[in-house]
Amino acid sequence: MTQEEELLRKADAPNRVANKYHEFYQGKMQTVPKCAVRSFDDFAIWYTPGVAEACKAIRKNPEKVFDYTNRGNTVAIVNDGTRVLGLGNIGPEAGLPVMEGKALLFKYLGGVDAFPISLNTQNAEDIINVVKWIQPSFGGINLEDIEKPKCFYILDRLEKELDIPIWHDDRSGTATVVTTGLVNALKVVGKKINQVNIAMIGSGAANITIAEMLIAAGVNPKKIIMVDSKGILNRHREDVKDDQKKWQICLETNAEGRQGGAAEAIKGADVVIGMSTPVPGTIKKEWIRTMQNNAIVFACANPLPEIWPWEATEAGAKIVATGRSDFPNQVNNSLGFPAIFRGVLDVRATKITNEMCLAAAFELAKVAEDKGLSTNYIIPKMDEWEVFIREAVVVGLKAMEQGVARVKRSRAELEDMSRSTIKNARDTTHALMDKKLIPPPPKD
Amino acid sequence: MTQEEELLRKADAPNRVANKYHEFYQGKMQTVPKCAVRSFDDFAIWYTPGVAEACKAIRKNPEKVFDYTNRGNTVAIVNDGTRVLGLGNIGPEAGLPVMEGKALLFKYLGGVDAFPISLNTQNAEDIINVVKWIQPSFGGINLEDIEKPKCFYILDRLEKELDIPIWHDDRSGTATVVTTGLVNALKVVGKKINQVNIAMIGSGAANITIAEMLIAAGVNPKKIIMVDSKGILNRHREDVKDDQKKWQICLETNAEGRQGGAAEAIKGADVVIGMSTPVPGTIKKEWIRTMQNNAIVFACANPLPEIWPWEATEAGAKIVATGRSDFPNQVNNSLGFPAIFRGVLDVRATKITNEMCLAAAFELAKVAEDKGLSTNYIIPKMDEWEVFIREAVVVGLKAMEQGVARVKRSRAELEDMSRSTIKNARDTTHALMDKKLIPPPPKD
Repeated sequence: MTQEEELLRKADAPNRVANKYHEFYQGKMQTVPKCAVRSFDDFAIWYTPGVAEACKAIRKNPEKVFDYTNRGNTVAIVNDGTRVLGLGNIGPEAGLPVMEGKALLFKYLGGVDAFPISLNTQNAEDIINVVKWIQPSFGGINLEDIEKPKCFYILDRLEKELDIPIWHDDRSGTATVVTTGLVNALKVVGKKINQVNIAMIGSGAANITIAEMLIAAGVNPKKIIMVDSKGILNRHREDVKDDQKKWQICLETNAEGRQGGAAEAIKGADVVIGMSTPVPGTIKKEWIRTMQNNAIVFACANPLPEIWPWEATEAGAKIVATGRSDFPNQVNNSLGFPAIFRGVLDVRATKITNEMCLAAAFELAKVAEDKGLSTNYIIPKMDEWEVFIREAVVVGLKAMEQGVARVKRSRAELEDMSRSTIKNARDTTHALMDKKLIPPPPKD
Repeated sequence: MTQEEELLRKADAPNRVANKYHEFYQGKMQTVPKCAVRSFDDFAIWYTPGVAEACKAIRKNPEKVFDYTNRGNTVAIVNDGTRVLGLGNIGPEAGLPVMEGKALLFKYLGGVDAFPISLNTQNAEDIINVVKWIQPSFGGINLEDIEKPKCFYILDRLEKELDIPIWHDDRSGTATVVTTGLVNALKVVGKKINQVNIAMIGSGAANITIAEMLIAAGVNPKKIIMVDSKGILNRHREDVKDDQKKWQICLETNAEGRQGGAAEAIKGADVVIGMSTPVPGTIKKEWIRTMQNNAIVFACANPLPEIWPWEATEAGAKIVATGRSDFPNQVNNSLGFPAIFRGVLDVRATKITNEMCLAAAFELAKVAEDKGLSTNYIIPKMDEWEVFIREAVVVGLKAMEQGVARVKRSRAELEDMSRSTIKNARDTTHALMDKKLIPPPPKD
C-alpha cells in the first residue's frame, strides 16, 4: 500500500461504521428535563396552574423570557439542504444527520442547546420569513449549509431584521479558525502579517469571509490574490460584477493586477489558502515550489485536501494545515461556533460582530501559543477543554465592550458560567452512558 | 376559613413557588446526546466524515430519515400565543413557559422529544406555511393554544397538506379524556350511552370536538343540547351560520328545538359538560337540582371549575369531574397526547384519526375499569404507569388497522417499544437528578 492508500483506508474507518451506528441510535440528540421532577405534583408548578405565573411575568416584562425559559440557551440550526458538506443539494431530510451532528457538537463542546430546523423550501424570502417567525423560541440562529450567494443575502437581511444573533458557520466559523492558524503560523516562521502575500484558491463563502477577517486582522488587502473557477480575480473580471462580494474582492485585492489561474496566483506567495475542490492535485506540488521560503499551506477542502500534506512538505512548505483530524494543524470549525455561541448567549448579545470573531480567533491562537507553538501545532485541539471557556469569555467581554450585550457580567462570572455549563453538558452525557441510558454502540 | 378559602389556599401553593423555580432552572427542557460519545474520535462518525454515509443513504431512500435520525420521535409544539391557558392573547414569548411545560409532559409521560415552536405571526396562512416548511425536522405536529376559529382552519388545511400527523390538543386531547370519563361514569350509574341527554355549556374548540367524539362513541346527537354565550344552539341561531362547525351543531343536535340559556339546557339532562368560564357559579347549584337522578357533572374550566364539586354534589350530582388535580376524577389532558403520540410515532403513522383517539379513550376507560370504578374513580391517574403503554399500543394497532401506519409492528413489539422508550425518559430524568446534574429546587 502507498502512503496515500494506507491513509485513506484508516481515514475511511468512521465511514464503515457510520450507517450501522446511525441506525442503532436513531438520532443523535434528544430532549430531556432541565428542571427537577420530584413527583407528579411538580407538574402543577411546571405546567398548569403554576406556569401561568411565569407567563404573566414575561407578559409584563418580555426580557424575563431569558430568565424563565431555556430560550437564552437555545439555537436553531437553520438549513435548506442546498449545500450539505461536499454533497451538494441533497435536500433537508438527507441533510438532517449533519444538523443533528452539529447539535451534538454545540452541546458537548459549548453547552448550547441547538435544534435542527431543516426547511422544505429553498426560496430566500421564505427562509427569511420562517426564521423571523420562529424567533421567539430561540436565543440565536445558526445558518448552516445554505448555498451561495443566497446565504449572504439571507444573512445580511436577517442581521438587520432579527433581535437575536445570527451566524453562518460556513463563513465566519471557518474564517475564525483559519485566522487563528495563520496568526500562529506566521509567528512560527517569523513573518509579519501586514507583509505577507496570500494566494486564496476558491472564492466560496468561506474564502471570501476569510479574506475579510484576515484584512481585519492586519493582512494588507493589496497582497491578497484570490482565484475562482475561471481564474484570478482582478479589475478585468466583468463577469463577476453582479456578485457584490466577489466584485469587491476584485477591486480591493491584487494591487499588481495579476492575471492567470491558480498556478500564477500561488507564484511567490508566502501563504496559500485552499477552500476549493476536495481532490488532491487541485493544488500541484510544482506550484508550491514557486512559493517563498517558509511557505504556509492551508489545504482545507473536505474530506480530501487540495494537496496531500506530505506532498506540500516535499515541495518546500514549512507548515501545512488541512480540515482533517488525522493530520497536524486541523482547521476545525468545532473550535469556533460552540464557544462563540457560549459567549454570545452568556451575555445575551443581540448580534455577533466580526470583532467578536476576531477576539475568538486571537484567544484560540493564544491558547496554542501558551502550550508552545511548532510547525505541527498552530491550532489548539478540540480535546483541550480550556479552549472553549477562554474563547467564550473573550467573546462575551467583546460583546459588552461593543455595546451589543443585553446583560453585564464580570470576567470571573463569564468564566464560571461557561465552565459550569459546558461541564454539565459533558457530565450529563457521561452519566447517561455510565447508566447505559445511552447504550454502548453495537459491535463493529 | 371556609371550605372554598382553604381549598384555594392549598391550590395556590404551586403558584407561590412558580416564578422562583422558573428563574432557578431557566428552562424546563434541554437537548442532550442520544448517541454515545466515547471519545472525540466519535465525532468523525457523528459528524464529518462519517455522517456523509447517513446523508447518502437517506438521499437514496428518503424513508431512512426515520431510521438514521431522531425525526421519528420529534414533535413540534406549534403555537402563536393567541390563547394561552386562560390568559388569552399574551404572545409567543409569554406563552413559552407553557410550551416548555408541555414538552416536559411529552417526554416524561410519553418518551416523546417535543420542541416548542413559538411563532411571531398570528396569521393563519403564515402559520400553515411555517409548519409546512419546518416539516422535515419533525415526525409530528402538535398545535397548541391557537385561538378559534383559526385553529380549525389551520388544522383542516394541514391535515390535507402535511405528510406527518398533526394534532390539536385543545380539541382532541380534551375530547379523548372526557369521552373516557363519560363512558365510565355511565357504567357507574348504569345508564346507556345512546340514551342519555347531554347539556354542553360552552361551544369552544373543546366542546365542539367533544360533541363529535361522543357522537362517534354512541351518543345520540339529537339528545345533545349545546349553549354558547348567547344561548342554546338551535336552527333559529342564524347568527352562527358563518361558523361552519357551530352551524352543524345547530342542525344536528337539539332535536326538540329547545330555546333559552344554560339553565334551560341543563333541565332534565343526565349529563352536563362545562368547558366555559373559569368562574365557580357559572353553573348554578339550582340548575343541577333540575337534572335527572344520578346526574353526571363535568365542570372542566381551568383553573377554576364552573361549579365547585361539593356544591354539585349537594345539589344531587352523583359523579363530578373537573380539570383539577386536587379533586377526584381529573379530566387531565396529560393522559392523552403523550401516549397517543407515542403510539402514532411507533408505527410512523401519517395521521391521527378520530378512531385512533376513540381507541385511546376506550383503553383509558378500561384501565380504570380494571382497577375498579367508583363515583370517585372514573378516569385513570397520571401516576399509573401502565396507562400510557396500554394507550400507545391501541393507538398504534388502530393506525395499522386503518392503513395510516408506515410500518407494521406486532402488539408485543409495540408494547416493548413504548415501555422501553417511556422508561428511558423517566430513568434519564431521575439519573440526572441523582447526580445533581439537575439540581434540587431552591428552598421555598
